Amino acid sequence: MISSWRSPLDPERVMQVNVTHWQDNAQQFREEQLTVEEPLELRIATRSLVVIMRTPGHDRELAMGFLLTEGVIAQANEVQMVEAGLDDDGLPLANVLEITLHKQRGQDKAQPAAFERHFVVSASCGLCGKNNIAALMTTTPPLDSDTQHLSAAMLYELAARLRSEQAVFEHTGGLHAAAIFDEQGQLLLLREDVGRHNAVDKLIGHSLLHGTYPYHKRILLVSGRTSFEILQKALLARIPCVVAISAPSSLAVELAEQSGITLIGFLRDHSMNVYTHAQRIVR
Amino acid sequence: MISSWRSPLDPERVMQVNVTHWQDNAQQFREEQLTVEEPLELRIATRSLVVIMRTPGHDRELAMGFLLTEGVIAQANEVQMVEAGLDDDGLPLANVLEITLHKQRGQDKAQPAAFERHFVVSASCGLCGKNNIAALMTTTPPLDSDTQHLSAAMLYELAARLRSEQAVFEHTGGLHAAAIFDEQGQLLLLREDVGRHNAVDKLIGHSLLHGTYPYHKRILLVSGRTSFEILQKALLARIPCVVAISAPSSLAVELAEQSGITLIGFLRDHSMNVYTHAQRIVR
Repeated sequence: MISSWRSPLDPERVMQVNVTHWQDNAQQFREEQLTVEEPLELRIATRSLVVIMRTPGHDRELAMGFLLTEGVIAQANEVQMVEAGLDDDGLPLANVLEITLHKQRGQDKAQPAAFERHFVVSASCGLCGKNNIAALMTTTPPLDSDTQHLSAAMLYELAARLRSEQAVFEHTGGLHAAAIFDEQGQLLLLREDVGRHNAVDKLIGHSLLHGTYPYHKRILLVSGRTSFEILQKALLARIPCVVAISAPSSLAVELAEQSGITLIGFLRDHSMNVYTHAQRIVR
Repeated sequence: MISSWRSPLDPERVMQVNVTHWQDNAQQFREEQLTVEEPLELRIATRSLVVIMRTPGHDRELAMGFLLTEGVIAQANEVQMVEAGLDDDGLPLANVLEITLHKQRGQDKAQPAAFERHFVVSASCGLCGKNNIAALMTTTPPLDSDTQHLSAAMLYELAARLRSEQAVFEHTGGLHAAAIFDEQGQLLLLREDVGRHNAVDKLIGHSLLHGTYPYHKRILLVSGRTSFEILQKALLARIPCVVAISAPSSLAVELAEQSGITLIGFLRDHSMNVYTHAQRIVR
């Protein structure tokens, strides 16, 4: 067995293990910190909806964000309750959340649809990415190409701000971060997870739980790359500007273009690439 | 609309777009290359199984690898045919694969089980990661803690070898790579994808299609992090050594430990961390 224990600093999210560190031909035994990965099962009316591999913490946010961005719910008030699932003895389970949808919203009717939506994902759009985007647009209108102006100098500072806030976890090297900033570059919320989609779902779930949804005029910063799914989540949360430290995919750029989102990649302290809707960026 | 076109170099996987590059207060218009992301729909007997967001290319490999690592099939000969799906006019669809399972394997019987397995993932194990591992172990025995010896010097060279082979795509910054090496460090197969799980599924699918499955005594190198799912795929393909450029998660380490896999992270040109089964590594 490996010798491992949860860090007293943050036992839920950091685990320490013994590793053999090799440097050229020399071996050395060391302690290293790992990001905790654990399954989270979401259930609706005791039926299993999904098992998400995630870093524990902010699980209710993750559940709410997942339900919204996967199309199971359209707004927060469709959810009556999110509580710990129970084992056969009625004791709470750490990694199971039981979700109760409001009956008046037609839980019995909504449920199969919700499952269908989740399981088939967007099966009708399996032809090409453009169809995928078109299908999304039928239910989700693009953002206004508004008069919002974001200063380049402010954007350059976001990367450093994210790094400084991530300091505790940086040395595990295994966490994706996502953060919400306001138009002036003030950090409003940061979430980290072993899964990059989860980090964004936690942000969105937080806004649903705290009545700050949607994220009008906010900026979403992600530590990694941007894909179709990240942009889809941003669009659902009405976020007009998505910034990434790394590269976007082709479909991320196409969705950003069509949905009115300013998409930025390769953010550095003094430079960035603006892929779409560059009109929002000013000196 | 964005001005974009597929690169003549590799039109399936690289797309060129115009971007606004900001450097301090100066803007410059540039062409940049993006990794192509497109949906791939897998159908069994015309029923949609899943839509995978992937980088086109090696789609049949991806399909086969996905079917195996998601538990839909247990071996290659359960699949009779993988062919392009057809539209209403009988024309082939670029992003749809129609899979035909062998009737004698009980397609009608197997199918609901296959779907169930995929949709519920491992719902019975939603309690904690240890249960997840235990459930996997009931169907998949651990690897022998064999007498295989891998030299540290050989392992250090794998990172450079991967980089040199990735040269074409490195500048898009948006591709995950996974590669299979033999015990002497010779590169046998490299696959790249916008999704890191896909890159590994393509490798496994290749072995299924070419009769080289399972990957006994091989080394799997991945360009990013390792999670539970990556180790699960490696175990199913009987790969005794998984090497990553970046960090593992806690559950990746736990699964590697229990399944007899040597797990290495933070591979550099002269150093690495060995998390589990370090006995395989020698000077």
